[in-house]
Amino acid sequence: MNVTVLAGGVGGAKLAHGFALCQPEIDLTVIVNTGDDFDHFGLKICPDLDTVCYTLAGLANPETGWGRKDETFEAMRQIGELGGPIWFRLGDKDLATHLERTRRLKEGQRLTEVVAAFCRAWGIKARVLPMSDDSVRTMVKTREYGWMGFQEYFVRQACAPTVEEFAFEGIDHALPADGVVEALESSHLIVIAPSNPWVSIQPILSIKGVASLILSQKAVAVSPIIQGQTIKGPAAKMYREMGIEPSPLAIVRHYGDLLWGIVIDELDRNFEAMIVSSGIMTLSTQTIMRNEQDRFRLAKEILAFYKDFNPNHQPGREF
Amino acid sequence: MNVTVLAGGVGGAKLAHGFALCQPEIDLTVIVNTGDDFDHFGLKICPDLDTVCYTLAGLANPETGWGRKDETFEAMRQIGELGGPIWFRLGDKDLATHLERTRRLKEGQRLTEVVAAFCRAWGIKARVLPMSDDSVRTMVKTREYGWMGFQEYFVRQACAPTVEEFAFEGIDHALPADGVVEALESSHLIVIAPSNPWVSIQPILSIKGVASLILSQKAVAVSPIIQGQTIKGPAAKMYREMGIEPSPLAIVRHYGDLLWGIVIDELDRNFEAMIVSSGIMTLSTQTIMRNEQDRFRLAKEILAFYKDFNPNHQPGREF
Repeated sequence: MNVTVLAGGVGGAKLAHGFALCQPEIDLTVIVNTGDDFDHFGLKICPDLDTVCYTLAGLANPETGWGRKDETFEAMRQIGELGGPIWFRLGDKDLATHLERTRRLKEGQRLTEVVAAFCRAWGIKARVLPMSDDSVRTMVKTREYGWMGFQEYFVRQACAPTVEEFAFEGIDHALPADGVVEALESSHLIVIAPSNPWVSIQPILSIKGVASLILSQKAVAVSPIIQGQTIKGPAAKMYREMGIEPSPLAIVRHYGDLLWGIVIDELDRNFEAMIVSSGIMTLSTQTIMRNEQDRFRLAKEILAFYKDFNPNHQPGREF
Repeated sequence: MNVTVLAGGVGGAKLAHGFALCQPEIDLTVIVNTGDDFDHFGLKICPDLDTVCYTLAGLANPETGWGRKDETFEAMRQIGELGGPIWFRLGDKDLATHLERTRRLKEGQRLTEVVAAFCRAWGIKARVLPMSDDSVRTMVKTREYGWMGFQEYFVRQACAPTVEEFAFEGIDHALPADGVVEALESSHLIVIAPSNPWVSIQPILSIKGVASLILSQKAVAVSPIIQGQTIKGPAAKMYREMGIEPSPLAIVRHYGDLLWGIVIDELDRNFEAMIVSSGIMTLSTQTIMRNEQDRFRLAKEILAFYKDFNPNHQPGREF
């Protein structure tokens, strides 16, 4: 059974890890947002890819949601002494990832190849794909500062500015990375992880051909909104600033025709009837992933949800 | 009194440090070879500049001759795990220098400005100048592998191949960095440090205008050859491979008309008469710099040597 997860950073990485723990029963592909990627100190930094890979490899820092566990910050401290920018915290181990990725890209390897090599080195069994080998740059228009790069907004400004609009520079010319179309076409189950719909999932859906493939296959989304809030990140704040009340319903409306189902938190069970009446299958369960067991259980429940409800399920096509 | 030291890496850094310890009695400029500079992992690495600056700042690793003291190698270890190249050892603290330098260069600063900023941050009082802001790449032609970049020869091949020829790519278009001409013109004493004449000093002398300025001012060299050997590095091996017996005499012939004097080790005192008879003032003393006291004493002795012998010495012009 082929499962493809569309993921941004932390929430996406956790759910992808849950599905990875279901291997080899399933064949897992994770398509990761690269709109957050940026150049810093001459290095190519891919925050979401790294969070997903570190999480799948068991190397992630569980406290921070970014970077590696057992990390040291010698380089960053010295950069500070030289008066350099320290708003984007690069650990010494984490630096190795950016250094070696940059070296390989300069050597002519595609990002997809680099990620595949890193996954092999880290013992990751899942197929991790960047959404594209082409450069896409998520831009956030804020009331206070106008347009800014995503990391400037997200890390440097700590998401404080009020968002007005999003843009994905380069998206018109970005092709899906090798394997993305194949993964979506051959997927039994496509899962939109509980990542930020505006800036983590939307870039992936905006890559040429991706949304139409999902439209024909249909996906299940896991709501990143729980009781009007997010576990991490600015998705709820963004919905409000865009004039939308953040709720599982907002997520359903956001993804619209792409969905056959949605997984909402049991705390939001009151939305269930309204969503079901709009023709979207709904699973309400505990969606907060506090530990590895939670990740595994949620993935298992989504697999069961799919087997029970999805019209495309083989064999038998229950619907 | 203005003193300018031409320096490569370790030997040059040590003697420059000796003169730095003579401040503020003297005003010190160090002009540093950048022919060894190279790009690695997308970072601009300047080994000689860093060795000089780390040494002057008291940050150098006294064991290795490169890199910083109290260094860690987390990033390098992880690069190794990813199958990346680890032949050029980059410490975590050292990485900060390359990262912040690369960032500033990409921002449009000149190398001279970056070095000046780093010197301020590290509390270095001497004026440290790269020989040029333009890229010069020292190439070594070896019998075994043909032409190769200097770091490939020096670090990766550990100087094992047999040298046949040297070239400095880009040298014809490289202008002296801001301050280089001014420093040489205003120098009372120009010192060619005990660095490798072929690959550390020759690039500096090959920069447009530098040799002719020194020719008119005259310099004193400190022989890097002691009893046919070097303390560190391949200079003696290179002389032999180029068909020249390595000795203080070879150094005198190498620099030719640029010199008014040479400092040789007391172990090579037997060469003194022959050098003096060729019209070059000679100081034989203990030139091996084992510690800070040795560096300071050697610098002091060179200052005294200059005051006793140099025809350009003001006031009085003893010759």
